[in-house]
Amino acid sequence: MTTNPPATIALLMTGDELMRGDTVDSNSAKIACALAETGVVVQEKATVGDDRQRLSAAIARLAEDHAVLIVNGGLGPTSDDLTAEVIAQLAGIALVEHAKARTHVEDWCARRGITANDANLKQAFMPLGAQLIHNPRGSALGFAVDLGHCRVITTPGVPSELMAMLPEVLALTSERVATHSVHTLRLQTFGMGESSIQQAINDSGYAWPAQVALGFRAGLPQLELKLTVNDDAHIPLQRACLDHLQALMGDHIIGEASTTLAQALAHALREQHKTVTTAESCTGGLIAAMITREPGSSDIFQAGYVTYANDIKHRILGVSLDDLDHHGAVSEAVVRQMLVGALAHSGADMGIAVSGIAGPGGGSEEKPVGTVWLAWGSSDIMHTRRVVIPGPRDDVQQLVAAAGLDLVRRQLLGLPTEPQYFSRQAQ
Amino acid sequence: MTTNPPATIALLMTGDELMRGDTVDSNSAKIACALAETGVVVQEKATVGDDRQRLSAAIARLAEDHAVLIVNGGLGPTSDDLTAEVIAQLAGIALVEHAKARTHVEDWCARRGITANDANLKQAFMPLGAQLIHNPRGSALGFAVDLGHCRVITTPGVPSELMAMLPEVLALTSERVATHSVHTLRLQTFGMGESSIQQAINDSGYAWPAQVALGFRAGLPQLELKLTVNDDAHIPLQRACLDHLQALMGDHIIGEASTTLAQALAHALREQHKTVTTAESCTGGLIAAMITREPGSSDIFQAGYVTYANDIKHRILGVSLDDLDHHGAVSEAVVRQMLVGALAHSGADMGIAVSGIAGPGGGSEEKPVGTVWLAWGSSDIMHTRRVVIPGPRDDVQQLVAAAGLDLVRRQLLGLPTEPQYFSRQAQ
Repeated sequence: MTTNPPATIALLMTGDELMRGDTVDSNSAKIACALAETGVVVQEKATVGDDRQRLSAAIARLAEDHAVLIVNGGLGPTSDDLTAEVIAQLAGIALVEHAKARTHVEDWCARRGITANDANLKQAFMPLGAQLIHNPRGSALGFAVDLGHCRVITTPGVPSELMAMLPEVLALTSERVATHSVHTLRLQTFGMGESSIQQAINDSGYAWPAQVALGFRAGLPQLELKLTVNDDAHIPLQRACLDHLQALMGDHIIGEASTTLAQALAHALREQHKTVTTAESCTGGLIAAMITREPGSSDIFQAGYVTYANDIKHRILGVSLDDLDHHGAVSEAVVRQMLVGALAHSGADMGIAVSGIAGPGGGSEEKPVGTVWLAWGSSDIMHTRRVVIPGPRDDVQQLVAAAGLDLVRRQLLGLPTEPQYFSRQAQ
Repeated sequence: MTTNPPATIALLMTGDELMRGDTVDSNSAKIACALAETGVVVQEKATVGDDRQRLSAAIARLAEDHAVLIVNGGLGPTSDDLTAEVIAQLAGIALVEHAKARTHVEDWCARRGITANDANLKQAFMPLGAQLIHNPRGSALGFAVDLGHCRVITTPGVPSELMAMLPEVLALTSERVATHSVHTLRLQTFGMGESSIQQAINDSGYAWPAQVALGFRAGLPQLELKLTVNDDAHIPLQRACLDHLQALMGDHIIGEASTTLAQALAHALREQHKTVTTAESCTGGLIAAMITREPGSSDIFQAGYVTYANDIKHRILGVSLDDLDHHGAVSEAVVRQMLVGALAHSGADMGIAVSGIAGPGGGSEEKPVGTVWLAWGSSDIMHTRRVVIPGPRDDVQQLVAAAGLDLVRRQLLGLPTEPQYFSRQAQ
């Protein structure tokens, strides 16, 4: 008696640009994420260039070992694009023109005012009997065909086309690989690192249930938390873990799903019918750009000031020349006056002002690179804080801008204005 | 007589986060790029999770087929980190504590005020006789060891640590795989697509020499061109191709190496001892942020205005309320007055003003989403232009901001103020 190999899945990414490192492969992460949401974990991933022999060997090997193989790339019109040809050869099937695929390619060309040439029409050739996968975004259709016991599914390398085709790819996968319902809760957090969160959970003595997987995805400036359960029955457990996290680090949670700091701030402002303004020196417009990157920001943001030079801080925001002289641009007095000026000139209810040394130059012993003064709040309640942020210029700017958004959010929501990321800071 | 296998190189990336798609693998592109600069092309890349069996099988297979195998990841302190153990087992060598590695780990912990625990010290265990690779950034040291005829080189998964260790990794690689001098010239361009450039080259009738490889790396908003030759003798040919490109699309070339649009603008401003200001509506501070992201921007940029609301455009920049009423905020009259106001208030020599509908809402038949008015120049010579940019909000903001920087650069350098990206545009 022989046993079937376990029904596993593999990915094969193709393209010379991946081998040369000219392109960072984000497609395989997109495919893996989509599969993970159906409870399927990719077992193996391989990447080869546009080389007939290596491509053929990789497909043969992976098809032997797995129940499903998703191949990405190599479906284009040029002679480098070998995927269909190599698979047909391995399967011992003829490569033939598919009538539906030909129509798709001709229509696609016609919509662009061109006549399909031989290169375009090459994309209509697929292994005989292959199942077509529709591409609503581009000319390259995908297909599925069996190679021994393995279902081989091909997809194009253009990310937007791949994304549009993923639902059909997932459906074709689920016919061969067992899927199960996965419930994922994503939380966006700011100001606590992965290890601090893990430590806080451990210190709390909470018996974290094994059925709830806790994952982290680090970004700058946000950190995403993922709570995953593999069974409908465990959703209450997932909810309990969320409540526990809320109790432990609630003020560092800015929202669910893909909420950004700017969105969380905008939401809090809208709830209270308030507006915000910015007075930026070392972030140079980044805070305003983060706010206005979000659609519909005009109801909570009307004016921002980028006052990079001292005399501009004085002339536009009314910062005292004496204070600029005595305390320097990176000082509590100056950042407070920047905030006062921005609030007065814009008429906004809330504001953020920052002045600092983003580096790499400009540091001193008293004020090293990374030293930033922040002022935030309303004309009634203003806060100021000095921070020293290590890291390159980009990081300093990003983190200060994020902290600025977060501090106004905290004030609006009545949360601690002394978040964990401050208490870790040297004064 | 047996022949040796060709001296090829493979990469093995490890980590569950790569298999789940939680992390996009940029490390392999970094390694491949660094190798490409020494003329070495990666033949095969594999990715597996933190699974002993799969990891072992992948290392064994790749070591069999290649002269060098670079393994990335799995050198951390946790029990998931299996790389050293699996390699030692495959090589039939004991895993032993290396004195130098222990000192490194202890020092690293000491600098962070902690005592090395068992988890930390696990990182000091390596296959007996392995050659240590120093990690100046983290606690995880790499090592090189032979597995049959293959040199296996291990590196940590943290990108900054990997980057710091690459020179040593390249040196270890070059002892086994033939490297040759590769001369790469990178050009940064803006405003012409890959196919337009290729078309322009074809149309020019220039017999592009086969010894000079032309590569493209698309980014938003810039497009990088790469001219590569594999031999010192072909450098004059590479230079000739560069000259040809310069003649064909010189005004779309913003610089060599990794020059950004903001850097190119800053350079042109500095040469002429001039400064620039910004008046932004739909880009909401992004142009100012792009300028100030570059170190040392304070000598060419002093003030920026984010005037998102109509009354702010009036109050801060002096835009006529009548014109705002009659023509709307997205109009030539308004954007011109924004520029005039910003120049006058800031005292800058040059300026960029933009007002548009970034979307997704706010469009109309007359002014669809993506409609943007730009004004740029000095108080003596001002230009205005209406563009309609397709795409999501982010793209509209990015492209308008980039065009703004480019247009001032063009004016400063006396280049055509009607670049190709305008002539393709409907008025």
